[in-house]
Amino acid sequence: MYSESGKYLVEVCFSPLSWPLYDREDAVVVVTDIFRASTAMVAAFHNGVKSIIPVSEISESEEYKRKGYIVAGERDGKKLDCADFGNSPFNFLEPNLKGQTICMNTTNGTQALKAVAHGNNEVVIGAFINISAVARYVMAQKKPVVIFCAGWKNRFSMEDTLFAGALVEKLLAEGRGEYFTNCDPAIASADLWLLAKGNPMEYIEKAAHRHRLRRMGLDDIIEFSLTEDFTSVVPVLRGTKLVDATLEGIAG
Amino acid sequence: MYSESGKYLVEVCFSPLSWPLYDREDAVVVVTDIFRASTAMVAAFHNGVKSIIPVSEISESEEYKRKGYIVAGERDGKKLDCADFGNSPFNFLEPNLKGQTICMNTTNGTQALKAVAHGNNEVVIGAFINISAVARYVMAQKKPVVIFCAGWKNRFSMEDTLFAGALVEKLLAEGRGEYFTNCDPAIASADLWLLAKGNPMEYIEKAAHRHRLRRMGLDDIIEFSLTEDFTSVVPVLRGTKLVDATLEGIAG
Repeated sequence: MYSESGKYLVEVCFSPLSWPLYDREDAVVVVTDIFRASTAMVAAFHNGVKSIIPVSEISESEEYKRKGYIVAGERDGKKLDCADFGNSPFNFLEPNLKGQTICMNTTNGTQALKAVAHGNNEVVIGAFINISAVARYVMAQKKPVVIFCAGWKNRFSMEDTLFAGALVEKLLAEGRGEYFTNCDPAIASADLWLLAKGNPMEYIEKAAHRHRLRRMGLDDIIEFSLTEDFTSVVPVLRGTKLVDATLEGIAG
Repeated sequence: MYSESGKYLVEVCFSPLSWPLYDREDAVVVVTDIFRASTAMVAAFHNGVKSIIPVSEISESEEYKRKGYIVAGERDGKKLDCADFGNSPFNFLEPNLKGQTICMNTTNGTQALKAVAHGNNEVVIGAFINISAVARYVMAQKKPVVIFCAGWKNRFSMEDTLFAGALVEKLLAEGRGEYFTNCDPAIASADLWLLAKGNPMEYIEKAAHRHRLRRMGLDDIIEFSLTEDFTSVVPVLRGTKLVDATLEGIAG
């Protein structure tokens, strides 16, 4: 709860560097990396992928490749040599992935997942493309909430912050009065979302990462990544794997 | 410069934890801790204080006290036992301080100063009460700019971020086209300032630190701390001391 009034606290962690300040043992931690890991993971489960094994070391990806797994992964936007494909969400929408387990290596998102997976934390993958389903799942957990922005190389990133703000807004507006925040990053995120929500594509045009993606020729995924509620799957961490919580019969 | 187009980059560092990502050797670093260290330091120079020796260890404050210095300092808003007074800006406006050197110990601000003081960095103390003078001084330096928010115990703080946003806005608007930013925290700060500037007192009512100050009975300084251009002094770091740059004859 972390509250005098019996409500659940909602916090936003702007980057992995700040995580020690928000670290909990019994919270719902929503990990997001809008461009592109979390959007790709959500797209994969929408496409019927059975599970995703997130890894952070290239040697781990190589090991999974040797074992015969499908391997996705990149560093700084470039496909790993050992990978079958990179981390564009569109790669995860290919029909042949249905029912498969994928080993996924990413610059930011996977490392964030590893940081938060301990204690009784419930770890959820959030993206604009599943934001309403994530909000419903979070509200069913009856726990404090930390929204963990994976950022870009430990930096604050605008797109992850906008997602955080949109989710804060949903929890405060639709959470039956069960949520509150006194966290400046949560307040700031919600206010930035207020400015952006009328036209997120136009707003994100200002952001640094959007320009990095364009330089790398990867900006085809921006509009998709900013589309709310493309799907209702909810990836959750179970042990070392991500699975779709809606297939466990426990989501709201 | 850090730019293809010959302009000076403006960045915002949201908390001391993120400083390694923004660390420069040849920038103007504007350190701010609106509630309350930077506002107090600026108030002191407005009142004719000769210099301020910033320290971060309590043992240092005790040592300066033994040497006969006037000592100001607090931890978590409470006056240190060895201190003559705490860090409320109003304490630094007392007439008997004119011409004196003060040793000042603070929870956040002093430690931020120590982190940034190296290389050829020009270290400046910024607050709303001297923001236009700081902007003029910064623009006279012809260097990239990092606005370093001291925050609260390594956390992002709304009031420091609003100051950062206000200064970003000034540099971009009044900097004769010599400044640019591609830094998401700088963009976010400026947008939050856009929301707040019509009524900063009302906006800051939402912020976490404002409520901490109220609980500690310290919220009398909020309105003063949010007042733009009360003074035109510009504290700068020279060796281990802060002095008023406008008395050095080098400010614009």
